Amino acid sequence: MVASQLRIPSILRTTVRTCQTGVIRPPRWAARPRFVVRPGPAQEEVMAQTGSLTVTGTGVVSGIAYAPVRRVQPRPQLPTGGTIDEGEQQAEIDHFAEAIVAVQNNLLERAEHATGNAAQVLRATAELTADRGLSRSVRKLIKQNETAEWAVVQAVDNLVTQFERLGGLYAERTTDLKDIRDRVVAELRGEPTPGVPEPTEPIVLVAEDLAPADTAGLDPELTVALVTEAGGKTSHTAIIARQLGIPCIVGTGKAIRRIKNDTTVLVDGAAGTVVANPDPDKAAAAVAESADYLNRVRSWRGPGRTSDGYGVELLANVGSGEAAAKAAAGQSEGVGLFRTELCFLSAPVEPGIDDQAAIYRSVLEPYAGRGGHTHVVIRTLDAGSDKPLAFANLETEENPALGVRGLRLATDNPDLLAHQLDAIAVARKGLDIDVWVMAPMVATVPEAREFAGACRDRGLWPGVMVEVPAVALNADQVLAEVEFFSIGTNDLTQYTMASDRLSPHLAALNDPWQPAVLRLIQMAAQAGLRANKPVGVCGEAAADPLLACVLAGLGVTSLSMAAPALPAVGVRLGDVTIEQCRQAACGALAAPDAVSAKARAAAILGG
Amino acid sequence: MVASQLRIPSILRTTVRTCQTGVIRPPRWAARPRFVVRPGPAQEEVMAQTGSLTVTGTGVVSGIAYAPVRRVQPRPQLPTGGTIDEGEQQAEIDHFAEAIVAVQNNLLERAEHATGNAAQVLRATAELTADRGLSRSVRKLIKQNETAEWAVVQAVDNLVTQFERLGGLYAERTTDLKDIRDRVVAELRGEPTPGVPEPTEPIVLVAEDLAPADTAGLDPELTVALVTEAGGKTSHTAIIARQLGIPCIVGTGKAIRRIKNDTTVLVDGAAGTVVANPDPDKAAAAVAESADYLNRVRSWRGPGRTSDGYGVELLANVGSGEAAAKAAAGQSEGVGLFRTELCFLSAPVEPGIDDQAAIYRSVLEPYAGRGGHTHVVIRTLDAGSDKPLAFANLETEENPALGVRGLRLATDNPDLLAHQLDAIAVARKGLDIDVWVMAPMVATVPEAREFAGACRDRGLWPGVMVEVPAVALNADQVLAEVEFFSIGTNDLTQYTMASDRLSPHLAALNDPWQPAVLRLIQMAAQAGLRANKPVGVCGEAAADPLLACVLAGLGVTSLSMAAPALPAVGVRLGDVTIEQCRQAACGALAAPDAVSAKARAAAILGG
Repeated sequence: MVASQLRIPSILRTTVRTCQTGVIRPPRWAARPRFVVRPGPAQEEVMAQTGSLTVTGTGVVSGIAYAPVRRVQPRPQLPTGGTIDEGEQQAEIDHFAEAIVAVQNNLLERAEHATGNAAQVLRATAELTADRGLSRSVRKLIKQNETAEWAVVQAVDNLVTQFERLGGLYAERTTDLKDIRDRVVAELRGEPTPGVPEPTEPIVLVAEDLAPADTAGLDPELTVALVTEAGGKTSHTAIIARQLGIPCIVGTGKAIRRIKNDTTVLVDGAAGTVVANPDPDKAAAAVAESADYLNRVRSWRGPGRTSDGYGVELLANVGSGEAAAKAAAGQSEGVGLFRTELCFLSAPVEPGIDDQAAIYRSVLEPYAGRGGHTHVVIRTLDAGSDKPLAFANLETEENPALGVRGLRLATDNPDLLAHQLDAIAVARKGLDIDVWVMAPMVATVPEAREFAGACRDRGLWPGVMVEVPAVALNADQVLAEVEFFSIGTNDLTQYTMASDRLSPHLAALNDPWQPAVLRLIQMAAQAGLRANKPVGVCGEAAADPLLACVLAGLGVTSLSMAAPALPAVGVRLGDVTIEQCRQAACGALAAPDAVSAKARAAAILGG
Repeated sequence: MVASQLRIPSILRTTVRTCQTGVIRPPRWAARPRFVVRPGPAQEEVMAQTGSLTVTGTGVVSGIAYAPVRRVQPRPQLPTGGTIDEGEQQAEIDHFAEAIVAVQNNLLERAEHATGNAAQVLRATAELTADRGLSRSVRKLIKQNETAEWAVVQAVDNLVTQFERLGGLYAERTTDLKDIRDRVVAELRGEPTPGVPEPTEPIVLVAEDLAPADTAGLDPELTVALVTEAGGKTSHTAIIARQLGIPCIVGTGKAIRRIKNDTTVLVDGAAGTVVANPDPDKAAAAVAESADYLNRVRSWRGPGRTSDGYGVELLANVGSGEAAAKAAAGQSEGVGLFRTELCFLSAPVEPGIDDQAAIYRSVLEPYAGRGGHTHVVIRTLDAGSDKPLAFANLETEENPALGVRGLRLATDNPDLLAHQLDAIAVARKGLDIDVWVMAPMVATVPEAREFAGACRDRGLWPGVMVEVPAVALNADQVLAEVEFFSIGTNDLTQYTMASDRLSPHLAALNDPWQPAVLRLIQMAAQAGLRANKPVGVCGEAAADPLLACVLAGLGVTSLSMAAPALPAVGVRLGDVTIEQCRQAACGALAAPDAVSAKARAAAILGG
C-alpha cells in the first residue's frame, strides 16, 4: 500500500488542533476563589462533616472546580510480534473489524457531544480509523498468520514511515495515526481507551504527569481542573493550567490514586486540596462563591487602586504589536514590559533600524493618544547564551544564567544596542505617548550611567531592570543615574537564592515570597520613594493577587503582568487598603521563610 | 631506529621538574610594596624626571621588581617538507652538527649559572640533544636529500611516537624532545631560542600569555615578575604569580611590545605599571623599601590585631592534615576553613566514618592543646555538579553554580551529611580543641535550623557559610539558629553580581570590592555584633591586605586565608587603627563602583 491509496479526509488537510492562546474565556465550572490561601472554614466544615478523603498537593493555579475525576489512561504496551494458527485467521479478522467499529463509534459519540474544533478533530479521526487501505493492510497481515494487534502495529508503522517521507501535511497526521493504533490495540485487548479522555461533560483531569501533546486540545469548558502526581510550580502542567485559566494542583504523589475514576471531587487550586465526595450543598456553595468572585473579576474596570484610592498602575507584559492591541482593549493602563527578543531571536541577521522601528511602533500605537501618564516600557534585547542570537556568535558558557546576557552583550556588540535605541527613537516619532526604555541585567552604577547616556542622547527616558541583587543593594546610587526601576522578580529570586529558576529540584527556594527577595524589592522601592521615581514589578510575582498587595505595601508603584491576569489583581487590590498592604509587607518581611511570609500576608489581607 | 637504541640519560628517568607548592620562599628581587594601590609620589617622580616609557596593565599580584625584560620567544613554525640538491648534503649535515653543538652549549652554559633542579634539567636536556641515535636518524634523512630542519622534525616526531607507545617515563620525556626540536630548528634558521627563557640572573618575564607548560619550571629567584599582554585576575598567569609570590601585571595589550628585550624595568604589581629605564637610584630605593616591607612580613608574629590592639583572628584555609601541620607551624591562630572535599571527590565510594574521622583528626591535631579560643572550622562537603562525586549520581545541570550543590545535596543524600557529622564527632574525641562545623550553600532559615539541629545532636558547634545573598539579607534570623557565620566572598560575589566567577568576560564584575558585596558583608557582620557571635571571612578577599582592613572595619571578627598570605595581612592590620578601618569601610560602601571603593579605602588607610 502506498500513501496515495489512502484518502486523507479533507478535514485533516488543515491544522485544526489549535492551542488556546491570548485571553482565555473563563470556563463554566472553574473560578478563582475569593479566599486564596488556605481552605476556608466553609470547606474545612465540608471535610469534617463528611469525613471524606482529602488529597493534598501543591496548588499552582487558584480556583474551585467540582466535577468527576477522569484519569489519563496509559498508552498500551505495543506488541513486537505475535502469530496465530491458520484456522484462527477469520476470527482474528472479525475481532479486528469489531475493534475498528468500536473505536470509530466511540470517537463519533464523543464528537456528538463536542463542539467546534474538538468535534471536527474527533470526526476526522473516526474517518481515518475506518480507512479502507489501512484495514486492507491489516487483513493481509492477519492472513499471514499474524495477530490482529501485531498486524495493526505493522500496518500503522508502515503508513507512518510513508507519511513522514511525504512530509508537510502528511507528516502532521502521523500523531493521529499513532493515536488510532493505540486505541485499536487497547480495544482489541479490552483495555480502556488510552490517552487523555475527551470528555463530553466537565471533568477533573488526573494524570501521573502531562506532556505538551496531552494538553494541546484541552477545552477549559470540559476539563475544569488539572491534578497531577508529578510536577512543580513551573511544570508544563502548571503553565497550561494558567493559560486555560483552570485550577491546578501538582505534586500530589501517588496519594491521588486513592480517588477512583468518576468520583466527584472538589478541587481547591489555592489550598492545593482535592476532596472526594464532598457534601454536595457545601461544594455547590463553594463553587457559587467562586463564581461570584469570577464575576467580579470579569466586570472589573481599571485603573488599579486600593479600596482607599491609593493608585497602583496595572500594566501589561507584551511581546508583539498583536499582544499590545489585545492588552490595550482590556483594562491595562499601559505596557510595563515589551520584550523585544521576538524581533531578534528568530532573525538570521540583525534586523534593520526601519524594520525594528515598525515592530516597536506597532506596540506603541494601541496606547497612543490616551494622554495622562500612559506609557510603554521597552526593554532592550535580553538575549544571552540561553536565548542565543542567530547572527551573533556567543560562546557556550558553563553557567549561562550567570553569563554574558542582557546589557552585557553590548560590551562586545555596541552597535546592536545603538541600533535598537535608534529604532525606538524612530518608532515614537509623531505618537502621543511616553516611551520608556530599560536595560536588562544591569549590575553596577557605571553600567546604568552609560546606558542612560545612550538613551538621553536620543531623547529617550532611561531606566534599568532590577534583577541582579547588586542593583537593589545600591538602589539609591543606581536610581540616581536613571528615571525608573522595573523589578524582574524571576531573575532577582534566582540570584538572591542562588538557585536556578528552571531547576525542578529547587522550586521551593525559587519563590518570590522568600523574605530575602522581598527585602531587596523593598530596598529598590524605597529608593524610588526617596527619589520620587517610579519602581514597578514586571515578573511573575506581579500576577499573584496576594503578592501584588504586598508589593504595593513595599512601595512598588506599578505592576506589569500578562494581560489576562490583570483583572484578578485589580479586584484584590480594590478589596484592601494601602495600610493593610503595608502591614502585610511588614509581616512578610519579618517572616523566617516563604511559606510563613505568605501566610502572614494572607492573615492580614484577609478576604 | 627504535627507542631502545636511544640511551635515556639517567637524570631523565626521574621527574625533576617539580612545581612550586606550599609555602613559597620570598624571592630575592621581588617584594610586596608597603603602598599597595597607586604609584606613590616617589615613583611618579621617577617617571617624571626620566621621562621614561610607562606601560600600564592590571596589577594582579602586588610587589616591586627591578630587572631586565626577557620576552618569551615564540616557538618556530615547523616545516612540513623541504628538499636539497644531492650536492648540498654534506653542507646540510655540517650545518646540523653545528646547530646541535650550539644548542647543547647554550643549555650547558645556562646550567652553569643555575642551581638545583633547574641545573639538572638543563644538563639532562643538553645530553639528550647530543644523543647519537637522534643525530644518526637526522643524518640519514639528510642523505635522502631532505633539509636539516625537515629531517629534525621527522626524526623527533618518530621518536615521540615511539616514546608515547612505550608510555611511563618515556612518555614524560616527549615534551623535552619537542623542546629540543624547536631549539634546533630555531638555531638552524638563526632565530632566537624559542620558549620561556631560562635565566641565569633575575629577569622580568614578558609574554603574550603564559600556559601551564610555560610556567611549570619558573624559579622565583630568577623570574622576579610576570607581565602578559592577555589575561585577567583569574588567568593562569595570575594564579602562578600568586603561588610564586612574585609581582604580576596582566592585560597590558600590545603596548608592552614597545619595551624591548633586555631593557631594565621597574614593575609595580600593585599599581599595574611597568616603567622602562627608570632612574636607577630611585628604582633601587623603591626596591629597598619594598624589601624592608618584605622583611617586616617575614618577621611578623601573630596574633592579628590593629595598631590600637583591636583583635582580628587570622586563620588558615586548609584541605588536608599536611596543610594544617604547615599552617600551624606558622602564624595562624587556628583553621577558618577546612575543605573536606578532598576526602570525597576522588573516592570511588563514600569513605567510611572511621576513614573520614582519621582525616579530620589529622587536621585537628596540629592545633590541639593550644588552649584559649583556638578552633578549627570544618566545612561539610561542598560538592555539586561542578565538583561531582564519583559515588553519587548527580544529573547534569544547566547552571551548576545555581544548582544542587553544597548542603542541597543532603536533601537527596541525608546519610552523606549524617555520616560526615558522625565522623567529625569521632575525630574530636579526646582532643583539647574547639571544633566548629559549618554548611556550605545555605539559603534559608529552615535549612540553617535543620543543619544546626543535626550538629547539636552530636555535640558539635554549628555555623553556616554566607555565600547565598539571601543569608546576608536575613542575617539576624539565620544567625539566631547557629553560632557563627563564615562569609565566602567568591560565591557571594558571583551571586550578588549575577556573574560567573570563572567567566573571563566578567572579571570586572566579579570583584569583592563591589560596594553591593561589601554591603552584604556588612549586613552579616553587623548581625554578628548584635548577636555577639563571630562572623569571619574565608574567601580570597581575606588575603588582600587592604581589603582585609575594610572587612575588619565592616565588623568581621576573623579572616581565613591560604597560610602564606597571612603575615602580609597581619602587617597591614598592624599599621592601622580600627577606627581607620571603619572609616575606610564607610568610604568603600558609599562608593559608586569597585574601583573607587578600593581607591577610597586606600586613601583612608594610607601607608
